[in-house]
Amino acid sequence: MTVSYPPSLPRHLVEKAVRAAFEEDLGQAGDITSQATIAPDATAVARINARTGGVICGIECALAAFAMIGPGLEVEVLAGDGSVVDAGAGVMEVRGNARALLAAERTALNFLTHLSGIATLTRRYVDQTEDSRAHICCTRKTTPGLRALEKYAVRCGGGRNHRFGLDDAILIKDNHIAVAGGVGAAIAAARAFAGHLVAIEVEVDTLLQLEEALAAQANAILLDNMDDDTLAQAVAIAAGRASLEASGNVTLDRVAAIARTGVDYISTSRITAAADPLDLGLDITIA
Amino acid sequence: MTVSYPPSLPRHLVEKAVRAAFEEDLGQAGDITSQATIAPDATAVARINARTGGVICGIECALAAFAMIGPGLEVEVLAGDGSVVDAGAGVMEVRGNARALLAAERTALNFLTHLSGIATLTRRYVDQTEDSRAHICCTRKTTPGLRALEKYAVRCGGGRNHRFGLDDAILIKDNHIAVAGGVGAAIAAARAFAGHLVAIEVEVDTLLQLEEALAAQANAILLDNMDDDTLAQAVAIAAGRASLEASGNVTLDRVAAIARTGVDYISTSRITAAADPLDLGLDITIA
Amino acid sequence: MTVSYPPSLPRHLVEKAVRAAFEEDLGQAGDITSQATIAPDATAVARINARTGGVICGIECALAAFAMIGPGLEVEVLAGDGSVVDAGAGVMEVRGNARALLAAERTALNFLTHLSGIATLTRRYVDQTEDSRAHICCTRKTTPGLRALEKYAVRCGGGRNHRFGLDDAILIKDNHIAVAGGVGAAIAAARAFAGHLVAIEVEVDTLLQLEEALAAQANAILLDNMDDDTLAQAVAIAAGRASLEASGNVTLDRVAAIARTGVDYISTSRITAAADPLDLGLDITIA
Amino acid sequence: MTVSYPPSLPRHLVEKAVRAAFEEDLGQAGDITSQATIAPDATAVARINARTGGVICGIECALAAFAMIGPGLEVEVLAGDGSVVDAGAGVMEVRGNARALLAAERTALNFLTHLSGIATLTRRYVDQTEDSRAHICCTRKTTPGLRALEKYAVRCGGGRNHRFGLDDAILIKDNHIAVAGGVGAAIAAARAFAGHLVAIEVEVDTLLQLEEALAAQANAILLDNMDDDTLAQAVAIAAGRASLEASGNVTLDRVAAIARTGVDYISTSRITAAADPLDLGLDITIA
Amino acid sequence: MTVSYPPSLPRHLVEKAVRAAFEEDLGQAGDITSQATIAPDATAVARINARTGGVICGIECALAAFAMIGPGLEVEVLAGDGSVVDAGAGVMEVRGNARALLAAERTALNFLTHLSGIATLTRRYVDQTEDSRAHICCTRKTTPGLRALEKYAVRCGGGRNHRFGLDDAILIKDNHIAVAGGVGAAIAAARAFAGHLVAIEVEVDTLLQLEEALAAQANAILLDNMDDDTLAQAVAIAAGRASLEASGNVTLDRVAAIARTGVDYISTSRITAAADPLDLGLDITIA
Amino acid sequence: MTVSYPPSLPRHLVEKAVRAAFEEDLGQAGDITSQATIAPDATAVARINARTGGVICGIECALAAFAMIGPGLEVEVLAGDGSVVDAGAGVMEVRGNARALLAAERTALNFLTHLSGIATLTRRYVDQTEDSRAHICCTRKTTPGLRALEKYAVRCGGGRNHRFGLDDAILIKDNHIAVAGGVGAAIAAARAFAGHLVAIEVEVDTLLQLEEALAAQANAILLDNMDDDTLAQAVAIAAGRASLEASGNVTLDRVAAIARTGVDYISTSRITAAADPLDLGLDITIA
Repeated sequence: MTVSYPPSLPRHLVEKAVRAAFEEDLGQAGDITSQATIAPDATAVARINARTGGVICGIECALAAFAMIGPGLEVEVLAGDGSVVDAGAGVMEVRGNARALLAAERTALNFLTHLSGIATLTRRYVDQTEDSRAHICCTRKTTPGLRALEKYAVRCGGGRNHRFGLDDAILIKDNHIAVAGGVGAAIAAARAFAGHLVAIEVEVDTLLQLEEALAAQANAILLDNMDDDTLAQAVAIAAGRASLEASGNVTLDRVAAIARTGVDYISTSRITAAADPLDLGLDITIA
Repeated sequence: MTVSYPPSLPRHLVEKAVRAAFEEDLGQAGDITSQATIAPDATAVARINARTGGVICGIECALAAFAMIGPGLEVEVLAGDGSVVDAGAGVMEVRGNARALLAAERTALNFLTHLSGIATLTRRYVDQTEDSRAHICCTRKTTPGLRALEKYAVRCGGGRNHRFGLDDAILIKDNHIAVAGGVGAAIAAARAFAGHLVAIEVEVDTLLQLEEALAAQANAILLDNMDDDTLAQAVAIAAGRASLEASGNVTLDRVAAIARTGVDYISTSRITAAADPLDLGLDITIA
Repeated sequence: MTVSYPPSLPRHLVEKAVRAAFEEDLGQAGDITSQATIAPDATAVARINARTGGVICGIECALAAFAMIGPGLEVEVLAGDGSVVDAGAGVMEVRGNARALLAAERTALNFLTHLSGIATLTRRYVDQTEDSRAHICCTRKTTPGLRALEKYAVRCGGGRNHRFGLDDAILIKDNHIAVAGGVGAAIAAARAFAGHLVAIEVEVDTLLQLEEALAAQANAILLDNMDDDTLAQAVAIAAGRASLEASGNVTLDRVAAIARTGVDYISTSRITAAADPLDLGLDITIA
Repeated sequence: MTVSYPPSLPRHLVEKAVRAAFEEDLGQAGDITSQATIAPDATAVARINARTGGVICGIECALAAFAMIGPGLEVEVLAGDGSVVDAGAGVMEVRGNARALLAAERTALNFLTHLSGIATLTRRYVDQTEDSRAHICCTRKTTPGLRALEKYAVRCGGGRNHRFGLDDAILIKDNHIAVAGGVGAAIAAARAFAGHLVAIEVEVDTLLQLEEALAAQANAILLDNMDDDTLAQAVAIAAGRASLEASGNVTLDRVAAIARTGVDYISTSRITAAADPLDLGLDITIA
Repeated sequence: MTVSYPPSLPRHLVEKAVRAAFEEDLGQAGDITSQATIAPDATAVARINARTGGVICGIECALAAFAMIGPGLEVEVLAGDGSVVDAGAGVMEVRGNARALLAAERTALNFLTHLSGIATLTRRYVDQTEDSRAHICCTRKTTPGLRALEKYAVRCGGGRNHRFGLDDAILIKDNHIAVAGGVGAAIAAARAFAGHLVAIEVEVDTLLQLEEALAAQANAILLDNMDDDTLAQAVAIAAGRASLEASGNVTLDRVAAIARTGVDYISTSRITAAADPLDLGLDITIA
Repeated sequence: MTVSYPPSLPRHLVEKAVRAAFEEDLGQAGDITSQATIAPDATAVARINARTGGVICGIECALAAFAMIGPGLEVEVLAGDGSVVDAGAGVMEVRGNARALLAAERTALNFLTHLSGIATLTRRYVDQTEDSRAHICCTRKTTPGLRALEKYAVRCGGGRNHRFGLDDAILIKDNHIAVAGGVGAAIAAARAFAGHLVAIEVEVDTLLQLEEALAAQANAILLDNMDDDTLAQAVAIAAGRASLEASGNVTLDRVAAIARTGVDYISTSRITAAADPLDLGLDITIA
């Protein structure tokens, strides 16, 4: 059995994102409410709790926020990235300077609720496909500036990542096909251009195009907006010669049916672009 | 009658956000699919269309993306920020180098769909409160790194902005009150700390606290999680002595009822944090 | 009695400013004089002393400089930000690597002398107004790139801060009034535009304009270049209905007289733009 | 026949690299020699010429340098990126302000000579393999900070790119194999981890390992430090089931022999890390 | 006769400084007062005038500010950097979008008044030394982050620049001398360390030390805190063998006397650190 | 005897360069191979060894890389910057988290091999000139973005640094001479322009020009492309009145002969631009 390790994320990306968030939240004067009302040396205990259940993601960001804001906050992680928590469960406990805690609160929560929302919705999709070979995967429809973090949240929810950008894989769409002179010609052009570690996927609208793509040995084929029957036919035709990815109108209601067609991947922008934030709150007690 | 001008946004913020988006989408090699399949001097016409109706926001970002990506794309804006469009309406038309158009497509759309989604949901809230004095306003629950843009989208949807950060207004919450020794003491401490152009708002849970806040001459009072009857009583008690802001459980179904209580502001994080992207697509024809 | 806490400053602003200062002082090769003449492991004790008395500001910057430059310097703060020191008093003592100490010396001192100069001059203005209700406040005439730090220095000197930028409060001046069609119309436009936590101030030249501004319920009114008698009349007319700010020709000689007119705020760019550096020196003994 | 387009490079990477180069060359005072000796409005004509023949690369950087330095320099490109030029050939001609030309000269040349050196050496390797199926490709042994540009230079020289970083493809080496429990187990773990557009390559030292890798369906197999006979056997064994990459001790003398073994790719760090700069000079005439 | 050209400044430094200034002044929402009260397409004419006479510096910064803020402002420079203007003289006229003009006003003025203040005070020192061989020069006591600009202002005022940082010249002070074992040993160590284009200056307190420094062939010698008679003796002793720089207590009253001693350079931090801003104002007429 | 200390480098430059290198190598997902195959808590021991002998440089960069990548790697430096090592010698040993070690490996090595290559080639040139007064020095032909590090590598190899940029010394070349009206006029213009700590060097092609340059009291004179006899004559003519620098066609074979002519400096771009990387490898054992 293949061991599977939890996803991870380069630290410098986390720090860059958290710094940008603090810049917009602290401005030129910091948390003036706390400066006015709370003694500089007051201490507090803060606990981040799940108001509803879900999959946690963003702990690294929250840790970076508490580390960056101030001197010596003590943090205990109760539920790491990828953990499934129930409503009421504790996620993180932080102790130390009260002003620092309050100044970092919203920044830490904004990362946690946003990323946990994505992880949670991804997990709901993944749960629907449990008995199939299909993997849920994301797209490039992500929030500008947060792609690496949102794709990490997809991994934390049990999903897979599609391309990270226009540069790390080839995805041939209708315009490329039209200009290149057909599916086969476009794949040939891609093969002649790209290095050997660049995968080539082609988007097809019909089973005829699918056959062309298989003949041209695409690594993966995106079946765009096909109904479940057509998807099943595509699976039969491909017979394992390329990875098949279903895309278009992938609702939570329908995803199980898509998975049953036998496709390898089901991609949807909903898990990143339309996930509601997970409801997490921070309860604080100032000593 | 007071003239009202369209909202605007500092240009350097737009450029910074768009540059960050390109960095994550273009990577170290750019759009390798187009490089492989489309001639460097091919030209195209692209049209961004609304697949569903809504309020447009993000045109400045799209313009910056098309300007930054390449040489001499010609852009015509069909629906400016704040415009209400129907499904099928054109939003923007761009002509020029085909590779440049394709390389900027996703980045431009990610800004437009995200921000238009916020503007559209804000407008739906605003429409519910049309006959009242209430303004819809946002919170600090925004996507990390995009606060200025998301708050601008709220303005484009007809909403108002709450604080931009911890530094530009004072918002006294339960912890500050507890530590400072009461509503009045907290407001006094804030008054003694802040400059004369810093507004002071205090969050209250009860009508008793409301009276304390009024007595201490808070500029604004946030009525947290009160039912409609209590809100109406609060309005009667305040009698115009401070701005009243209702907050908590502000669903689209309930917002009209809240507005009818007579409060001045209704704030909700839903318009920024839980808005689905507006469905916009780019249709391209390569010459 | 309202407790008053010392001012504070977001840490990331301090670090950014200090990094920029090191970039310009260390260049591509660092302190070549010390590299040529002092052993890499030589140690030293440095003491920053006040050559003249004043109010200290910039300790956070100095701490950041000594932390950033090198390995394990030990720092003892003798006079924190906001402290009043006499000539000859010690401000800070630093022990450790001699090269590191010498490389950070000028950078640490440039922050300390500049910011302490501002805090000291502010304090001199504040001292002149001690028996009045008037607060001394700054303007936006600050050194480009150092606004947050200079405004913090004003707070350390006992002053208050005016707006931090064009975005955090409304200040209606003659041009806005002229274009908007009068004081009342301009205030109405501002009210219709701004959120409830944005204060509105209007600059007036005459008592007639003052009455218009009061009628339109401005939060604050800037009395521009009025003589003391007129200021006193303005105070009588306003009768507490708005904060009154006197501005223009605020010399140290005259400020007490202005304060006696009863205005709430006296603003001057001199405390930031025309303060001489406080004379601080660093005495070093290399072991 | 598949059309092949010239390589290209994202514009923002070029600008970032050129800005960094100017920061280190212009410092805080710019070109003081020219400021002292040449009139501000003097004009000049500069021509960049090849002192030895080679493949040109870096024109985009030179264009960016001349655009960034000053007002209105007119540039004519005589030999674009990827062009093969003979000794004495002109590469670029620039007309305009003399000080601007002199200030940009070294920066433009440093990019051009460095990148053209890489393109030229790559081309020499490529020329040796002309009659074979083998493509020359680079590695991650690049100059820190210049990877995207150096990999672009490889493309300009007719080579292909290997991974751009640790994130865009999987390359399983001996340590991964040891820890994962064998070639097959490592590939299975990679397959279970990665998305469908991530290629998996495995480095093998023996033909036995090669068979394991083929059985586990690696997309590509790196044959590390094998002699030509063993490489030829590997080609026979693989029989097209995976891309084969030869690596290790790839000298210019030996590369043709390697290519004749029938491998698909030959990778070497020499083309990036050990290429001498191409000898280009700038001849200037000040009017 | 040697022609002398006006000083200049690398453009990227100007742009970086102006961008930082806009970031702090425009915040996340820009100029909200103008957005509320002035139509987006209103136009205006603004003229920057000298309220008092002085030497202008900072035109490049103002130009960058007006260029960066908005679309198509037309600028006419009436008095370039280094110009001497009388009270009432025009410095710059700008025409175009009214909001853009108002948004850039304070940023442009903050640069102009600060840098012109330095240029003006430098010029007053220079005027005092007109009949002598002495040049006025600055030190490293500059405002953190603005060194390149402030040293440029010194040049605009007719002064010379001392070191730009710790890295571009050697200045041996008492601590270096003590540790190195004497003036001669320190200079020898510096000579052995530095490249041939690094000048070596040594700070001496006595004529005895001066003789040591001359014997060791320092390029320049800083005569620290000597009275005028001692300075004159030093000049006689040196007899042209090294550049002599007088430093310490260089008031405007005393500087002519110092110059008459025959020293080559007189350095003072006052011209950068203690210059009052030049009084410039912007008069605007909105069409 | 003059003590000579090892060269050093400002820490912030090292960190900036290493961060840029990680950004390009880790991308948006980090080291996906190790994430797939190695347990998050696996530990390892890595040892960097010299495959061939040479001079080590870049240890600070490697230390920064291992510090930045991860939590608590323990590093032992076996051969510091400037050390001469034999083939087989250990350079550095690192213990700790296996993934962190593998993620930093290439980045650390790319700095070490590149900079050690420069230091090693510099040392070979220096060794050829051992019995002479001549110092080997570099030029501005450096890799864009790495100048400070490459010049540091030259110092580690026993060489001296020429100018770091266009701003820190004056180097008058043929164009400047032509425009200024002769060698003497150009030097006079430079003298009139520059501060007293800016050295002036002039490039001459003939002995006649050399005499002019000496007469005009240049600090240093660059003898461009002269043969050894002419260089020897130049030394005789100059007789110590200025530093003499030989430049042009400085091969390793010829450099000893040049040194014997008696010149003070021999400059060559080969030591930075044409040095092969030193062959260093990292051997890792995962526990």
